[in-house]
Amino acid sequence: MNTLKYISSPQNTLIRKIVLLQEKSRERRKQALFVVEGKRELALAIQANYELDSILYYPGIMSKNDLLDLIKEIKNQPEVIEVSQDVYQKLAYRDSTEGVIALLKTKKHALENLRLKNKNALILVAESPEKPGNIGALLRTADAANLDAVLIANPKGDLYNPNIIRSSVGCIFTNAIGVGTTAEILDFLKANQIQVFCAALSASQAYTQTDFTKASAIVVGTESTGLSQSWLEASTQNIIIPMEGEIDSMNVSVSAAILIFEAKRQRSK
Amino acid sequence: MNTLKYISSPQNTLIRKIVLLQEKSRERRKQALFVVEGKRELALAIQANYELDSILYYPGIMSKNDLLDLIKEIKNQPEVIEVSQDVYQKLAYRDSTEGVIALLKTKKHALENLRLKNKNALILVAESPEKPGNIGALLRTADAANLDAVLIANPKGDLYNPNIIRSSVGCIFTNAIGVGTTAEILDFLKANQIQVFCAALSASQAYTQTDFTKASAIVVGTESTGLSQSWLEASTQNIIIPMEGEIDSMNVSVSAAILIFEAKRQRSK
Repeated sequence: MNTLKYISSPQNTLIRKIVLLQEKSRERRKQALFVVEGKRELALAIQANYELDSILYYPGIMSKNDLLDLIKEIKNQPEVIEVSQDVYQKLAYRDSTEGVIALLKTKKHALENLRLKNKNALILVAESPEKPGNIGALLRTADAANLDAVLIANPKGDLYNPNIIRSSVGCIFTNAIGVGTTAEILDFLKANQIQVFCAALSASQAYTQTDFTKASAIVVGTESTGLSQSWLEASTQNIIIPMEGEIDSMNVSVSAAILIFEAKRQRSK
Repeated sequence: MNTLKYISSPQNTLIRKIVLLQEKSRERRKQALFVVEGKRELALAIQANYELDSILYYPGIMSKNDLLDLIKEIKNQPEVIEVSQDVYQKLAYRDSTEGVIALLKTKKHALENLRLKNKNALILVAESPEKPGNIGALLRTADAANLDAVLIANPKGDLYNPNIIRSSVGCIFTNAIGVGTTAEILDFLKANQIQVFCAALSASQAYTQTDFTKASAIVVGTESTGLSQSWLEASTQNIIIPMEGEIDSMNVSVSAAILIFEAKRQRSK
């Protein structure tokens, strides 16, 4: 079993390092480490074979037995550290009361390592998504639809932002995620013979008139500027969700879900 | 024309009152006033016949002419107040650079005043929605789908929370909104002969197998606890969005959008 360490001071070097990793994308990239909070999220990360560097728990909330139970299946056991209430409160997100926080090694999400589950794949592509909450919601929807992959083109930040992990309720670990430039992702889709359907307000073909039953990628851009020309021009077909209101825009995770579940509906027939 | 007042001190009584109205639901209820920020949001509020009590602008961002243009169609002209940069920064949301903030009179959203546009109405009901961001996203989707009404059952807070207004990008003003208890809303739906479809993880009928072409209300609960028994029992049919992932939950605004746009698809045929 793991040697048990105890940290009582919020000024401890490791604790300060964790805070930096929570706050700075650059730090996460440099150290190839990120922070996960919560029991369910950690269980999903472990299930997805993420490697744990160390795990901290506050026994006022989580018992040592529960903690050991959570990590019992892991081959390379992480360092287990008990922390004081002060330390826990410094690290925990405001409403969090789960008592457990871990340091994990990041993955690269290279396209060349991505294996699609089905020949008739259904994939979501998001170009430069901005808000962590939107990325989290996209990942939840992708999980619910059991998509073959979620591809992020030209990301604005890293995937391991704590707000993405939190708003994805752990679905960052349940999806097959690939990251690359627009050109790389277009090459990947072409190599795998996947049709490209770009959501665009300028499109004239309604999504309901579009056949998603063959291998398909649904591509969404940002709410402010939409998709770049590279996507719109490389597209098999640009498609639109007809809107009839005063405001010509929906939340990007909402639009993506409408398109994905129309594809699911067509495929379930 | 309006007499022009100038406020330079963030400690001014009116400015402190506005801050209170931004922060406290109780204050908004007591004074029957709320705060709207941004040009587009205000234009939509004016279009929806909200009454303006006063309007503040910071000439470093918005010119007096633009301001007068914004309010020129209003019958009862509001008091126009120029403010200093200090005052504007105290009131404005972090990224806001629109230079205009107004005090408006709240509406009651009583069910008895709600007139449905179509006999074959399509309505969204949300029971006790919690997060302002979710309510905002629901209102955006409702606007895009041109729903006949959005009904809020047993609300947890007031509709005029600045985070709801902001995340709805003004769609709080473009929708017909009714607020009431669950019993009142069920009565309203019955009186208008509207079918009730409750989204529930316990349901066995898929939403794609459901006929939404007659007058229909789509009812969603909270992400944490779902709908209350009162809804599930009064329902014409409980329906489910089949999920195939690790996590059995989607964002409530995402689920609602999938259901609403399936209804729209069926009705467009």
